[in-house]
Amino acid sequence: MSHPFDEAVALKSLGEGRYAGATSPAYWNMAGPFGGVTAAVLLRAVLNEPARRGRPLAQTVNFCAAIAQGAFEIAVRLVRDGRSTQHWNVELTQGEVVAATASIVTGPSRETWSHLPASPPSMPPAADLPPMPTEGRPGWLGRYEMRFERGAAQPGEARPDAPASAESRLWIRDVPARPLDYPALAALADAFVVRILQVRGDVPPVATVTLSTYFTADEAEMAAQADRPLIGVAGARIFRHGFNDQSAELWSDAGALLAVSHQLVWFKA
Amino acid sequence: MSHPFDEAVALKSLGEGRYAGATSPAYWNMAGPFGGVTAAVLLRAVLNEPARRGRPLAQTVNFCAAIAQGAFEIAVRLVRDGRSTQHWNVELTQGEVVAATASIVTGPSRETWSHLPASPPSMPPAADLPPMPTEGRPGWLGRYEMRFERGAAQPGEARPDAPASAESRLWIRDVPARPLDYPALAALADAFVVRILQVRGDVPPVATVTLSTYFTADEAEMAAQADRPLIGVAGARIFRHGFNDQSAELWSDAGALLAVSHQLVWFKA
Repeated sequence: MSHPFDEAVALKSLGEGRYAGATSPAYWNMAGPFGGVTAAVLLRAVLNEPARRGRPLAQTVNFCAAIAQGAFEIAVRLVRDGRSTQHWNVELTQGEVVAATASIVTGPSRETWSHLPASPPSMPPAADLPPMPTEGRPGWLGRYEMRFERGAAQPGEARPDAPASAESRLWIRDVPARPLDYPALAALADAFVVRILQVRGDVPPVATVTLSTYFTADEAEMAAQADRPLIGVAGARIFRHGFNDQSAELWSDAGALLAVSHQLVWFKA
Repeated sequence: MSHPFDEAVALKSLGEGRYAGATSPAYWNMAGPFGGVTAAVLLRAVLNEPARRGRPLAQTVNFCAAIAQGAFEIAVRLVRDGRSTQHWNVELTQGEVVAATASIVTGPSRETWSHLPASPPSMPPAADLPPMPTEGRPGWLGRYEMRFERGAAQPGEARPDAPASAESRLWIRDVPARPLDYPALAALADAFVVRILQVRGDVPPVATVTLSTYFTADEAEMAAQADRPLIGVAGARIFRHGFNDQSAELWSDAGALLAVSHQLVWFKA
């Protein structure tokens, strides 16, 4: 039986950089697909390209319009085939509407000087923390097991005039458990409950506008991680003028930084 | 006499979303234009579009190929004209080569609930800190006055096996002083001396691969700031596999967060 994530990012080749896919009910959010699964399927399209060399290094997804339930097409274009990197542009369309665009950078892994100024948070074992209940919440949340050490969204507890901390720390993995790969990592990089819920205690209409993920994991680190939970850290710097930012880190349980992501989120409140 | 920055981002309309520009010797880096001025000219093109509504909210620039000295063309496409946001794609070409691409989100400013979890660093007055000498260094550095409170790049002092902190805090403004606007802010968001120099004490070949900037300043905040120095904070989480990340904040001297930027940098070392 295939994993619902693999079904959600499955693409059929239409030839010449064109693919057909469809939204997945398993990853539905309130008014469209969970953004992370859209990021993942755009990355999947580039990974499917025969001309692609190396692994994903960076991806920026722009969420241009609501994605409706059902079929979509993806068009991939290799903008620049350089020595160190390839630059790809990707568009997801439904009929005449461009619903999402992405720029994706790929390149071969090289061993170089390395240094890790950042450090993972100290976390209790995942099994010591209860999983967040997902009953009655948007469907995609049931596709992730989230065990919060701090910063669990507590609907109704915070108030706009007494905002809670914007930081969350949690163990997170796919449900059912699934070995880590780049599309899954792309989705996990967006799988933090929206900051405004945690900070204010309510969920106004929200939508990610643009999401950038830097993939710092190599294949060996992901193979070593397998399907065990990752450590996630997320925070925000500012909520203003109808937008907030969000930055997040994904760490392996062995202390390797696997991905860093940043996004700008629209909110109506 | 016009400011060298305005000369560097000047564009001539070629009609229908097409523009002609040229690189500026005043903003030359070691092997191409300073990336910030490329970001600025791509933003300038979108701001010039008659259909553009509102202010810049977010920009991702992908540096695909070296930009040669001389003329370039920019093509702008409105991918999606939504109610809250407009999504633009931009390409900078020299002949057949796509040297840079960008996605830019614009939208009207709205007053909403606001909250600032981040805070600016405590800084001594700019006049109490000496400006970084720029003689003998790439030309674009002479176009910025940088007064470091900490994390000034000290060529030759650090070693790969004893890396210095990746964090810098500084006062920064254009030289000559120039009232702040969005193109200038886009350039300032990239105007941090490369982290690897500060951390290792040397400069291997480096190049920004992708740069995302979230513009959190409204017009009134920029007008209030005028041409006084901004506070800049920059850091990095990881150097590995030939890439490092960089995150930066730009603050007004009144404590307003004006922009947040993130980038992935290629290095050869």
